[in-house]
Amino acid sequence: MIYWLDLFGVLVFAVAGSLSAGKKRMDLFGVIVVALATALGGGTLRDLVLGCYPVFWVSDPTYLLVGSGASLLTFILARFLKPPGKLLQTADAFGLAIFTVIGAQKAMGLGISPAISAIMGVMTGVAGGMIRDVLSGEIPLILRAEIYATASLCGAAVFTGLSFYLPGNSGIIFLSVAVTLFLRLAAIHWKFSLPVFPSKE
Amino acid sequence: MIYWLDLFGVLVFAVAGSLSAGKKRMDLFGVIVVALATALGGGTLRDLVLGCYPVFWVSDPTYLLVGSGASLLTFILARFLKPPGKLLQTADAFGLAIFTVIGAQKAMGLGISPAISAIMGVMTGVAGGMIRDVLSGEIPLILRAEIYATASLCGAAVFTGLSFYLPGNSGIIFLSVAVTLFLRLAAIHWKFSLPVFPSKE
Amino acid sequence: MIYWLDLFGVLVFAVAGSLSAGKKRMDLFGVIVVALATALGGGTLRDLVLGCYPVFWVSDPTYLLVGSGASLLTFILARFLKPPGKLLQTADAFGLAIFTVIGAQKAMGLGISPAISAIMGVMTGVAGGMIRDVLSGEIPLILRAEIYATASLCGAAVFTGLSFYLPGNSGIIFLSVAVTLFLRLAAIHWKFSLPVFPSKE
Repeated sequence: MIYWLDLFGVLVFAVAGSLSAGKKRMDLFGVIVVALATALGGGTLRDLVLGCYPVFWVSDPTYLLVGSGASLLTFILARFLKPPGKLLQTADAFGLAIFTVIGAQKAMGLGISPAISAIMGVMTGVAGGMIRDVLSGEIPLILRAEIYATASLCGAAVFTGLSFYLPGNSGIIFLSVAVTLFLRLAAIHWKFSLPVFPSKE
Repeated sequence: MIYWLDLFGVLVFAVAGSLSAGKKRMDLFGVIVVALATALGGGTLRDLVLGCYPVFWVSDPTYLLVGSGASLLTFILARFLKPPGKLLQTADAFGLAIFTVIGAQKAMGLGISPAISAIMGVMTGVAGGMIRDVLSGEIPLILRAEIYATASLCGAAVFTGLSFYLPGNSGIIFLSVAVTLFLRLAAIHWKFSLPVFPSKE
Repeated sequence: MIYWLDLFGVLVFAVAGSLSAGKKRMDLFGVIVVALATALGGGTLRDLVLGCYPVFWVSDPTYLLVGSGASLLTFILARFLKPPGKLLQTADAFGLAIFTVIGAQKAMGLGISPAISAIMGVMTGVAGGMIRDVLSGEIPLILRAEIYATASLCGAAVFTGLSFYLPGNSGIIFLSVAVTLFLRLAAIHWKFSLPVFPSKE
């Protein structure tokens, strides 16, 4: 089940990466490269930091197929259909929620403490989008927009907290994904935000 | 032979990195840092993802010497000679072709499937140039210019396909380098390109 | 002692990262993300390249606590106090000096040759600041400003050179930190600089 969720996360992040790359008028392969970096970047960093070798997508080609297939399809469909206004942000919110929980879960499975596992979840969730924005020549939206890393941290905290007391309960995964997703989508919709650094300097 | 090819790749990528950094008026050590990140970045990422420790340039100082020597020489020569217009692009094309094949070859040598090895070749080939452009504050040219990742993918596919059926044939390396190089140089010369993402959004 | 020095390096780099992120008007969590990437990025890259698993901050939560605490405090204090003009550059110089020596020391402890260990020290010292600047949408200052990588290289060379002949002498650590710090602060104060790449192209 985790596996299917992971593939779904790769799919939505590949779509988000393709739409973002498309705004910069990249060519077909450029779009696929950005989509794969977005979809696989967070998990790759997670596996490197945790010391899981080789990285997840090396041993299972499904990830690459799903990621490049979703990117290609987005590229083709965007020629015929205008993507709905908030598609990029919504796909991105789903990917964030899923990768956060999967990152935290993988860390806890290796016996890492709940607090560090939560941070590992946030890192897995936000890294892909940050790589995408850096490759697109933008300051990562993550860092200035509405509640983003915050939504990821809340979902990761719910997951690691509950998993610590109720190990093996698979409902926790859905609850934690829902928490991140709700916070992020609510922040997009109602434009919640955190205080911004005062720019006195 | 692979070893000499690898060093030649480091040399040409260091030259390309130095020229690119020079356009941004970086100082001597900044130029060397960008040159080394360009020349060693792709292989470092490859070794990390494949789990080869320590990374190739840690155990053999020759890579660092060749990379920083080439960068220093470029820095000095650029004071006296105007670099030919297409030197950066041509050096970059040679590096791309060589690192693509070496990345794919290293992955296959570890028993990884031909398809994933081809992707690993592309990653090794394009990562250095992407790091260089990000450090220079630019959207990686790779992602929007003429056939680039495409040339790398064709060379990698030729290499992994032929190596699978004719293992141990060293002519395959040269053929695959030639395929990538020809496609990339032809794309620069005749300005071939792939379809660009439609910007309806 | 190395441990306390390392924590101090994390603290000053987190402050520098927060101030830099604050200039871009990021929100609270964005600031903390940039601060942690700045403070832990260099050491993470060092551990990955050297093959030390898991990465240092995964097994010891103190690093994350110190880094996010320093970032939070900077965020709060900046609402009430105008940070002194050169605080960012000075904090950055301390972090550079400390991480350079710690990186070189860790590499030598693994039996790596002095020359490569020195490069590893430079990489540890400069990577955090480069990640910070890339995330802030700027060409890394490191690459164009006054003597920066040069100061790091001198400190690393002093450390690895002396450690090779006088192993186990803890005064070497302070001497090498002082060399980097002096060169960097002197360069800021008197605006020393290296020759810049000629922009004939």
